[in-house]
Amino acid sequence: MSEVVNLTKELVTRPSITTDDAGCQELIAQRLRRAGFHCEHLRFGDVDNLWATHGDGGPTLVLLGHTDVVPPGPREAWASDPFVPEIRDGLLYGRGAADMKGSVAAFVIALERFVAAHPGHSGRVGLLLTSDEEGDAIDGVRKVADLFRERGERIDWCVTGEPSSTAKLGDLLRVGRRGTLSATLTVRGIQGHVAYPEKARNPIHQAMPALAELAARRWDDGYETFPPTSLQISNINAGTGANNVIPGELRVLFNLRFNPNWRAVQLEQECEAVLRAHGLDYEVHWHRGGEPFHTPEGLLRANAREVLAKFSGAAPVESTGGGTSDARFIAPLGAQCIEIGPVNASIHKVDEHVAVADLELLPELYLELIERMLV
Amino acid sequence: MSEVVNLTKELVTRPSITTDDAGCQELIAQRLRRAGFHCEHLRFGDVDNLWATHGDGGPTLVLLGHTDVVPPGPREAWASDPFVPEIRDGLLYGRGAADMKGSVAAFVIALERFVAAHPGHSGRVGLLLTSDEEGDAIDGVRKVADLFRERGERIDWCVTGEPSSTAKLGDLLRVGRRGTLSATLTVRGIQGHVAYPEKARNPIHQAMPALAELAARRWDDGYETFPPTSLQISNINAGTGANNVIPGELRVLFNLRFNPNWRAVQLEQECEAVLRAHGLDYEVHWHRGGEPFHTPEGLLRANAREVLAKFSGAAPVESTGGGTSDARFIAPLGAQCIEIGPVNASIHKVDEHVAVADLELLPELYLELIERMLV
Repeated sequence: MSEVVNLTKELVTRPSITTDDAGCQELIAQRLRRAGFHCEHLRFGDVDNLWATHGDGGPTLVLLGHTDVVPPGPREAWASDPFVPEIRDGLLYGRGAADMKGSVAAFVIALERFVAAHPGHSGRVGLLLTSDEEGDAIDGVRKVADLFRERGERIDWCVTGEPSSTAKLGDLLRVGRRGTLSATLTVRGIQGHVAYPEKARNPIHQAMPALAELAARRWDDGYETFPPTSLQISNINAGTGANNVIPGELRVLFNLRFNPNWRAVQLEQECEAVLRAHGLDYEVHWHRGGEPFHTPEGLLRANAREVLAKFSGAAPVESTGGGTSDARFIAPLGAQCIEIGPVNASIHKVDEHVAVADLELLPELYLELIERMLV
Repeated sequence: MSEVVNLTKELVTRPSITTDDAGCQELIAQRLRRAGFHCEHLRFGDVDNLWATHGDGGPTLVLLGHTDVVPPGPREAWASDPFVPEIRDGLLYGRGAADMKGSVAAFVIALERFVAAHPGHSGRVGLLLTSDEEGDAIDGVRKVADLFRERGERIDWCVTGEPSSTAKLGDLLRVGRRGTLSATLTVRGIQGHVAYPEKARNPIHQAMPALAELAARRWDDGYETFPPTSLQISNINAGTGANNVIPGELRVLFNLRFNPNWRAVQLEQECEAVLRAHGLDYEVHWHRGGEPFHTPEGLLRANAREVLAKFSGAAPVESTGGGTSDARFIAPLGAQCIEIGPVNASIHKVDEHVAVADLELLPELYLELIERMLV
């Protein structure tokens, strides 16, 4: 079993559901300290962040990742325990295998090999990890970026290990991200008995036409290289459990992913106009998760393109699709940000997995990119 | 203090939250045995049922009631302890005072007086009590009715003591009830990340147009004296809690209250046609809580009308409104069913109460009806 597979398995074994790091960062810090890195644990609220650097002066390249994972859901929906990594038919299964403990393990191996081969490399190389990328992302990289801003910490290039590949490792280079905006919506009705609907006001019945309209809306057709803006209702809850009670309240969470065609504030106004048009008695709390960003052509993007072409055999698609990532907090520091990671087909699903063959290529891939930037 | 008030207080003191009878039926059985009744305790599962009869041959009139009460909620929300009956300003307070320990006490007093005055009355008079009217109602009157069916036990007339009066004792005579049908619906989608909606299938988005159609549908305009059929979504739940995950499944409970224009099976077919028309991947479990019933004009209804007019000073409204009651299980045995009881304004609420003056009239009212039917 290769080193990167072993380390990935060690990380998957730790059930680090957001915001619990479950010891992943300590394990990594121990290894990187041995390799000569300076490691700093930055804990904000109940979120663990690790900032490890090697070298000083000159440009800074940061590898960015997260140790937290999304909840696995019911154990019985998985073929094997989500926190007991298992290889079947060349695939390593476990929650976080693809998003993104495999990339994090590959980062660590690549950094160890890089500083061993180039102890006097130019510039500075760093690893930044958080345990709150999948959650509210309030006390994670957002707070670290605030600290970097205070300290005048300069970051030139940032490579996020998010699972960006679609069908084959290296087939896609992420050069931007949509923004993200979340809403917590409460629709108020009047509780009552189902036998007397005329004495109650059912908030589920009231809200459905408005929610259906928001869900069906085509916000735009995409923007330059950005995919279309999309709204998804992720959670909806109402009811006392009893089947004879009309509930007094409906709670809904929804999320928008939007391209640079929009600012968060505009989307908030559009959504509230729909809620008002349907006459809802509602309250909504908005959480602006991050505005969109875009990395133009330059040294980092060019080198990454060539490295990916070498490893995958063809030039990658350069895309701004997919979710958000913590690069949204690093980009505003003036850094060029790209994202390179394994195939994302199974992420956030049951039976999440990464191909062992891909996992074994990842350290070399990251190492070559680091060398091109800092040697 | 009158006999009926004393007995009501004795019953309220017993905290008989569904399905715990808390000794109410034993207390009543002891009294009725002394009065010459034959008493049978019919226990199904954890539910107590009491079947007490006097006389044989000829038509059977049954008084139907329940000793269980709904939970009182937090003690501090009540002005006085819900299980310590207290009279203030002519009102007797306590959980069950109105629904329906007052009626049950009045039944007992009326029956004692009836058999004392008419030891050789024609026909048969009976009292049927359960401790599961407010709950699932599976091991209560439903099971007793099954037993009656097996035994060939004939019931001609049934008077339920549910609190039917609206503003004044005797202002309403219940002559039918809507049926009730419950659905547990699961809509399956494909779980995924909100940023990649094209790789997932959001069951909330899929289900909303179908649910909106069901909720908006006007099933009928009412039927003779029945209120319109109504569908209410009582519970809706989907989501992992995380705002970036499209859930794999949506669960919905809904309930229909329907008039004799419909049979449960027809409503099931209509609902499923809507679900199918929207292309949903769904599973639905139906629970037929009770078919509707309607008692046409006849001896029982005419006598009840006259008795209520005498006691309240005006002819009662004859209604089929409101929730369901255990009469739904007795009606299919071929019995004519009506419901007469105290004012229902405070039932299922804090500070439940019954007017002492009304309570003191109830035994006479029931006695006069029994005499008209069996003497």
